[in-house]
Amino acid sequence: MLERFTVPEEDQVIVQEERVRFATESVFRKMGLSDQDAAQAADVLVLSDLRGHESHGVSNMLRRYVQDYGTGWLNPKPKIKTIRQSAVTATWDGDGGIGLQTGPRAMELAMEKALRYGIGSVAVRNTRHIGMVGYYPLMAAERDMVGVCMASAGGRHMVPTFGAQPRFGTHPIAWSAPARRMPPFLLDMATTQVAGNKLDLTRRIGSQIAPGWITKPDGTPVVEPVDPPEDGDYFMLPFGGTRESGGHKGYGVAMIVDIMSGVLSGNGPGYVANHRYSQFVMAFNIEAFMDTDEFKNEMDGLLQTLADTPPAPGHDRVLYAGLWEAEEMERRRANGIPYHREVVDWFNGINAELDLGFELP
Amino acid sequence: MLERFTVPEEDQVIVQEERVRFATESVFRKMGLSDQDAAQAADVLVLSDLRGHESHGVSNMLRRYVQDYGTGWLNPKPKIKTIRQSAVTATWDGDGGIGLQTGPRAMELAMEKALRYGIGSVAVRNTRHIGMVGYYPLMAAERDMVGVCMASAGGRHMVPTFGAQPRFGTHPIAWSAPARRMPPFLLDMATTQVAGNKLDLTRRIGSQIAPGWITKPDGTPVVEPVDPPEDGDYFMLPFGGTRESGGHKGYGVAMIVDIMSGVLSGNGPGYVANHRYSQFVMAFNIEAFMDTDEFKNEMDGLLQTLADTPPAPGHDRVLYAGLWEAEEMERRRANGIPYHREVVDWFNGINAELDLGFELP
Repeated sequence: MLERFTVPEEDQVIVQEERVRFATESVFRKMGLSDQDAAQAADVLVLSDLRGHESHGVSNMLRRYVQDYGTGWLNPKPKIKTIRQSAVTATWDGDGGIGLQTGPRAMELAMEKALRYGIGSVAVRNTRHIGMVGYYPLMAAERDMVGVCMASAGGRHMVPTFGAQPRFGTHPIAWSAPARRMPPFLLDMATTQVAGNKLDLTRRIGSQIAPGWITKPDGTPVVEPVDPPEDGDYFMLPFGGTRESGGHKGYGVAMIVDIMSGVLSGNGPGYVANHRYSQFVMAFNIEAFMDTDEFKNEMDGLLQTLADTPPAPGHDRVLYAGLWEAEEMERRRANGIPYHREVVDWFNGINAELDLGFELP
Repeated sequence: MLERFTVPEEDQVIVQEERVRFATESVFRKMGLSDQDAAQAADVLVLSDLRGHESHGVSNMLRRYVQDYGTGWLNPKPKIKTIRQSAVTATWDGDGGIGLQTGPRAMELAMEKALRYGIGSVAVRNTRHIGMVGYYPLMAAERDMVGVCMASAGGRHMVPTFGAQPRFGTHPIAWSAPARRMPPFLLDMATTQVAGNKLDLTRRIGSQIAPGWITKPDGTPVVEPVDPPEDGDYFMLPFGGTRESGGHKGYGVAMIVDIMSGVLSGNGPGYVANHRYSQFVMAFNIEAFMDTDEFKNEMDGLLQTLADTPPAPGHDRVLYAGLWEAEEMERRRANGIPYHREVVDWFNGINAELDLGFELP
C-alpha cells in the first residue's frame, strides 16, 4: 500500500478483529439481514481491513450501506432468481441485495459447476456494492481453484482514453490462484488508476494524488501532483494513465469488465445501469487441466522466484499481488486493525443510536 | 497506431492482400506444412498486416520462422497430444508446431465445447510463436462468442515492478466480443508497455521510444525519450510503467497470463519454459448466459457510445480497442498493404533462392 493511504499514527485506534467483526455483524443484523448473511457480509468487510484494503473495509462502506438500507435501495432479504442456466453457467437476478451476501453464493455455485465440469461461471444482474472484489476469487483459491471476479460499477468516473466524458465506473477485476507454501496470488485492482474509495481516503488523511490519476473536467489529464478535488470537478483515468504509458490498455481491461459483468449478465453497461451493479464470477478446477499438486508446486516456484528477484536501486524488495496483503493479514490478526478514530466514533455512535450492544475498541 | 510505428512513405511498397497471402503460403508450404496448415498460418500473419499490426505480420515474423524451420526448432507436421480432457477443458501438447497452426485448432475445440456446454477452454504446452494473439478471440467473435487468448512467452524481457531482473516475456492477452453493426471489440495487447516486435520496428524506422517503457540494466525505469538500445542493454516495464502510474497492475495482468497459459498448461512459467511457449484459449457461448441478439444490440450501444464520446482538447476522436483496426482492414483490403521495401526484397530474395513462383509487389 502506498504511504499516502495509511492512517496517520496519531489518529489510529487499534481494534481487534473479533470486536470489529461482532460490531459489523450487529449492524447488518439490525439492517434486516439473516444471521448467516450478516456474518457473511461482515466477513467480506473485515477480510478487506485485515488485508490492508481499508478503502473497501468498514471505514468507507458500512455507513454508506446503512444509509442505503434506510432509503430502501438495498434489499436485506433478496430472493435470487435464476434467469438462465447451463451446465457450467448461470445468470442471476440479485433482487437488489447487497453483493456481500449474493456474491459469495454466486461463487459457491461457480465452484460447484467447476468441480463437476471443469469450469463454472455465474453472471449476476441487479446486485449492489460487492466490497473487495478479491474476496470471491480467494474463495476459489482456498478450494484449490483459480478464481475470477469482475464488477461493472456505474459509469460516471472513468473517461475512455482521449475522452472528455466518463463512460465507466472503477470497474474492478480480481484473479486468484493457489500455491502450496506461498500466500496465494491475488490481483485485485480497479481499472482506474486508483479505486474511487482511495480518493475519499486520501481526502480524509490529507495527502495528495499523483500525476496521471485524474483529468480536468474537459478530459485533459492532470500531470502534476494535486490535492484531491471535490466530486464533480474531475474524472478518473484508466490505469496506465496517459496513452503513452498504457492508459489505453487499462481502458481495454475496463471494457472486458463491462462486457463480462455488465453486458453478459443482462444488466447493461455500467453507464446505463449506474448504481444497479452487476458481477461476474468464474472458477477453474485446476484438476481438469493438470495435477493440482503439481500446479501448486509450480506456483510456489513462480511466486518464490518473484519474491526473490533482486530489487532495483532504491527499493527493498520485489512483491507479487497478494504477498504484502497476506503478510499484513498475519500482522493484523495478531496485533489488531488500525482504524481512524473517526471510524471508531461512528461505530460507537450507531451503537448508541440503535442499541446494538458493543463498544469499540 | 502511434505515429512512430508507421513505415515512412518513401520506404513503402504497396502489396495487395492476395499477393502477400500467396507468397506467405508458398513459404510455409516449402517449410513442410500441409496446404491447409500453410493457408491457416498465412492467414494469421496476413490478418495481422491487414489490421495494421505490422509488428506481428510477415515483416518481422516470417524470416524468423524460416530460420527456425531450418534449425529444426519448429516442427512443420506436429502431432498434437491430448494430455487431459474434461467436458469443457482440454490440455494439449503442441509437439513443437508453430502456434499459427495449433492455436486455431485449440480455439476450434474450445468453441465446440462452449457450443455444447456454455464455456470451453484449451491450454496448450510445448507450442511455439502464435503470432497476433487477437486472431484467436476474433475466431470466437465471428461465431457469436466471447473469445480469450493468453500466451506466456518466455521470461527474459519484463521486470516485475521494482525488480532488477526480468521474469516475464511480453505475455500478451487478447479478449474479443461481437456486436451487430459495429466492428467487434478486440483488446489485443502485450502486458509490457509495447510488444517486443515494436521495438524492432522502432529501430527499423529510426524513431525514439517513450518515457516509462524500459529500464536500465539495473532495473531503474528510463523516464526520458531515448533511441532504442541494443538487445541486452535494457529490460521492459509492465504496461503502466512506474508504480505510480499503474505498472504494478500491468505486472499483475502478466501474472494472470503466466498462470493461465504457462502454469495451467503444465508448460511451466515463462522464465522456465523460455522459447517453448504455451497458449491458453477460451470461448464463452453468449447464448448460455443471455439472448445472443440482445447481447449484440447492447454491444452496439456500448461501442457506439464510446466512439461518440466527445474528445478531450487536442484529440480528434475516441476509439475503442478493435475499431481503428477494423477501419484499417477495410482500407488495406481496398488499397493494399504498405510494406517496408526491405520486406519486399526479402520475399523476392527467398523466392529466388527456393524457387517459389511469386514476385512482389
